Amino acid sequence: MIERKLRLGNLYEFYGELLTEKQREILDLYCNDDFSLGEISDNNGISRQAVYDTVKRSEKLLEDYEENLGLFQKFSERQQTVEQAVAELDRILIEIDGSCDPKKLKVELTHVMTLLSEMSNG
Amino acid sequence: MIERKLRLGNLYEFYGELLTEKQREILDLYCNDDFSLGEISDNNGISRQAVYDTVKRSEKLLEDYEENLGLFQKFSERQQTVEQAVAELDRILIEIDGSCDPKKLKVELTHVMTLLSEMSNG
Repeated sequence: MIERKLRLGNLYEFYGELLTEKQREILDLYCNDDFSLGEISDNNGISRQAVYDTVKRSEKLLEDYEENLGLFQKFSERQQTVEQAVAELDRILIEIDGSCDPKKLKVELTHVMTLLSEMSNG
Repeated sequence: MIERKLRLGNLYEFYGELLTEKQREILDLYCNDDFSLGEISDNNGISRQAVYDTVKRSEKLLEDYEENLGLFQKFSERQQTVEQAVAELDRILIEIDGSCDPKKLKVELTHVMTLLSEMSNG
């Protein structure tokens, strides 16, 4: 459930501008301000069912955009690679403490560079 | 002119699936296969004007998507950061030749890591 809401928030960040103003208003409250369907209903004088329908409809639209464009997927994969590179550099930095082994370092840094280069070209 | 076509090709790669099939057919020939408007006209039995109009109309639509979503801009900026990190790692690797200066390395690698981390969070 929380994962679904997180994904919806991510897709909304990517493609939200392709929704209508009304859909965006509801999704802002739901995803960014983390209100529940009931709270959005109470605070805005809309039935809970209408809020639910708008969220569902918007989710379907955003998933359709992602299915066609796949930009969130592409972005996430690249993000993971960057995070892996950062983690490796962090580990290497901890190892360098007063001294360093040039041979080992070359291998390790070449690996980080290859990770990032492949991403650049992918 | 070539820069415009390159940008059009990039935006097409990002948002092409939001165009109609006919628009995609023409843009494929124009951007990916690098045919001229005249060649597309000759090879497909469409007037040069119609090809031109389709390219112009598609370009307007793709620029509108980018203005609203800004995903190509976001990707490009991240791409530049990755390329900068790769270039710095490349330079560091050349410097490590049989020996290495742990103090200097720490500073340099921390810089690369910061670049990438800031991108992760941005």
